[in-house]
Amino acid sequence: MDVAIVGGTGKEGFGLALRLLGAGHRVTIGSRVAERAADAVARAKEALGDDVRVEGGENAAAVLGAQVVVVTVPFAGMIEIYESIAPALQSGQAVLDATSPLMSAVGGKAWEAIGPWHGSAGEVAASLVPDGVSVVAGFHTIGAHALSDLDRELESDALLCADDEDAKRMVGELIDSVPGMRWVDAGPLANARITEPLTAMIITINRRYKVRDGGFRITGRDSWGALES
Amino acid sequence: MDVAIVGGTGKEGFGLALRLLGAGHRVTIGSRVAERAADAVARAKEALGDDVRVEGGENAAAVLGAQVVVVTVPFAGMIEIYESIAPALQSGQAVLDATSPLMSAVGGKAWEAIGPWHGSAGEVAASLVPDGVSVVAGFHTIGAHALSDLDRELESDALLCADDEDAKRMVGELIDSVPGMRWVDAGPLANARITEPLTAMIITINRRYKVRDGGFRITGRDSWGALES
Repeated sequence: MDVAIVGGTGKEGFGLALRLLGAGHRVTIGSRVAERAADAVARAKEALGDDVRVEGGENAAAVLGAQVVVVTVPFAGMIEIYESIAPALQSGQAVLDATSPLMSAVGGKAWEAIGPWHGSAGEVAASLVPDGVSVVAGFHTIGAHALSDLDRELESDALLCADDEDAKRMVGELIDSVPGMRWVDAGPLANARITEPLTAMIITINRRYKVRDGGFRITGRDSWGALES
Repeated sequence: MDVAIVGGTGKEGFGLALRLLGAGHRVTIGSRVAERAADAVARAKEALGDDVRVEGGENAAAVLGAQVVVVTVPFAGMIEIYESIAPALQSGQAVLDATSPLMSAVGGKAWEAIGPWHGSAGEVAASLVPDGVSVVAGFHTIGAHALSDLDRELESDALLCADDEDAKRMVGELIDSVPGMRWVDAGPLANARITEPLTAMIITINRRYKVRDGGFRITGRDSWGALES
């Protein structure tokens, strides 16, 4: 799949880029500054070899032609970032929004959640993309540290919330293609109001237990992913 | 341990009563109507044998002498129930509040959450108990069906939120004493704002995948429970 990662030079975005490249996808790393994207491309090749299909560019250029656009940026920067990429987004693209609304956006604590007026960051994102572009909220329960540590399998499920079932399934297939990663259909986009604050919960648990990789697995069924139709 | 279960004739409360009795605790099943509590006592003895130490009574009578008072009632009834037991609660008791604020309280859907003014049902509970009684919010991710099916081990973690660390640890020990159950320290009582809506998330997942036992396991550490001091 062709994937763009907006904010792909950050720890979470770059970790996800490495995982997706390792699974054989074409990844374009986006950044506000083209030089930082080029640096991330060099680091990705250093980690995985020259054969991986990775490119870099400014965020708005990076999203062109991608089937899935992943947005991993801090909540405080999300509106500016979405406004910068919106003119470049094309109908039919799916946006995987991984933004977690945390009090750190306003100088507070990262283990305290904040409630956006729209209900969730995913719904803020949906208000900022053009018609025909679908937002899938997810990935809030997967830590940057766990993503970056390529020697370890991921142990946390991606809870995906979206109103567009096709877009949700496309993003789900992308996630399932990475070893150790699973996705769970967590309902409509509005359910991001429930899943996004889980980032604050995991940070709380990581701090309390002095671990770095706390996460969630959904139990009750051996496999999740796409629903049988 | 001496445990009272207010709302212990409901499916979740009764399932928990059976699990705690099976682990050797003394359980008093509370109900608004004494006859229904007596009926639940008879059903518990039928399921587990006459040797289990189970009694029943009206809610306010049931809480007397208990170390842990578990409250498993629908959100729509919680204020009336707390007002009825508050005069009987004694300083030093811990209340495990399992209330999930759901739209079903006002005729809506059980897979949509509702936001209490206080922040969470746990914080509503804290506003209704006497000084010296500590509220621990938890158990929102453990389904009534899974609790009642005694042939199966529970696969979901109890995320406990409380400001009183001693009360949280006492409730945690109670949970750990039941085979297959684990507790995780999920931070202060205000974090119930994050954990309570997970009930709506699990109901969403159960409905989508046509399962009855969806739950959460926390990953990243082999054992959770009490923090090392």
